[in-house]
Amino acid sequence: MKIPKPISNLIESFQKLPGIGPKTAQRLTYYLLHLPQTELEYFADSLSSLKKNTIICSQCKNVSEEDPCPICSDFKRDKSQIMVVEEPLEVLAFEKTGKYFGLYHVLHGSLNPLENIGPDEIFIEDLFKRISEDRLKNSVQIREIIIATNPTMEGDATAMYLAKKIRERFLNGDDLKITRLGMGIPTGADLEYADETTLRQALEGRREM
Amino acid sequence: MKIPKPISNLIESFQKLPGIGPKTAQRLTYYLLHLPQTELEYFADSLSSLKKNTIICSQCKNVSEEDPCPICSDFKRDKSQIMVVEEPLEVLAFEKTGKYFGLYHVLHGSLNPLENIGPDEIFIEDLFKRISEDRLKNSVQIREIIIATNPTMEGDATAMYLAKKIRERFLNGDDLKITRLGMGIPTGADLEYADETTLRQALEGRREM
Repeated sequence: MKIPKPISNLIESFQKLPGIGPKTAQRLTYYLLHLPQTELEYFADSLSSLKKNTIICSQCKNVSEEDPCPICSDFKRDKSQIMVVEEPLEVLAFEKTGKYFGLYHVLHGSLNPLENIGPDEIFIEDLFKRISEDRLKNSVQIREIIIATNPTMEGDATAMYLAKKIRERFLNGDDLKITRLGMGIPTGADLEYADETTLRQALEGRREM
Repeated sequence: MKIPKPISNLIESFQKLPGIGPKTAQRLTYYLLHLPQTELEYFADSLSSLKKNTIICSQCKNVSEEDPCPICSDFKRDKSQIMVVEEPLEVLAFEKTGKYFGLYHVLHGSLNPLENIGPDEIFIEDLFKRISEDRLKNSVQIREIIIATNPTMEGDATAMYLAKKIRERFLNGDDLKITRLGMGIPTGADLEYADETTLRQALEGRREM
């Protein structure tokens, strides 16, 4: 049996999403057949307006409806700290902690030579520009760059590249700290199942109590 | 931080899908931000045309582009058998086996009193109508109704209801067999982990070899 074209088209679209295989794509599509047309239209509108109605904040490169974004334009935020993350979703995660009051810089990816993603493909130069423009001001604001890329091969490489370049370009580094997120055991984890690298990092990062 | 409205709208839409929780919905939405607008438009079009460009086959109630559907209008199919399934996706599954050449009847659900789904909410009466119209013809075609509802509480109840009603309404039942799919151990399963009901049914359904 040939699957009707409108159905196979949608299955195909779902299948392109990360973590959605052919079976799930089929299940989702056939589930949607039960919904009223108005809900499908609403879903379709959300999809097509996702990028049309959002912009990239000219300062932090986060996805936003306004430029500058609500975080960059919030005068209560601490402008001395910039946390560098890979994706907009990570800004959300840190905002949910309610413990970070500085600004962000979203790279929109990480360095990945295997996929041809070099420094020019992500918003790295924009970060340097942000720092150097700040240095030109009468009162320097940025005092700390918190590198919060993922603890993956690509994230680590990106972190190292950033740290190296920032040190090279903003030599009088005593007024600009570069930090990396603490590594160790996540809350709720079982020491027994933690891998060696995590345990080693937890040991290195131990704190007095 | 407030999530931009175009993003939260799409997250909301994804979250309504079965098996997609808030975290996955977020991840999918932020993933889509990386795709070109044309792909988003294609996805959106597929969604809004899913129901607009498909119809329900007037005979078997399967989702199709034409009426009657390719299966019902295929003269090579065996018109003596009708397999009753709950969902269009199940027609697909049986077609993939390449071993069934009869017709189908898609109920679009199963009897579920807890969710107020009675015989009138699914295509049960249409099945009876199909059988009785066939009985009125000079040469009766339908010889077997294969009930292939799911082996769940609702599916079993639907199967029992169908069998009872078909027996009541088409009394001279000797020329109309009602069968139910074989139950037992699925291929590749481990006997050790099979539940009692499955094992009992496998025993009851044992065949000489």
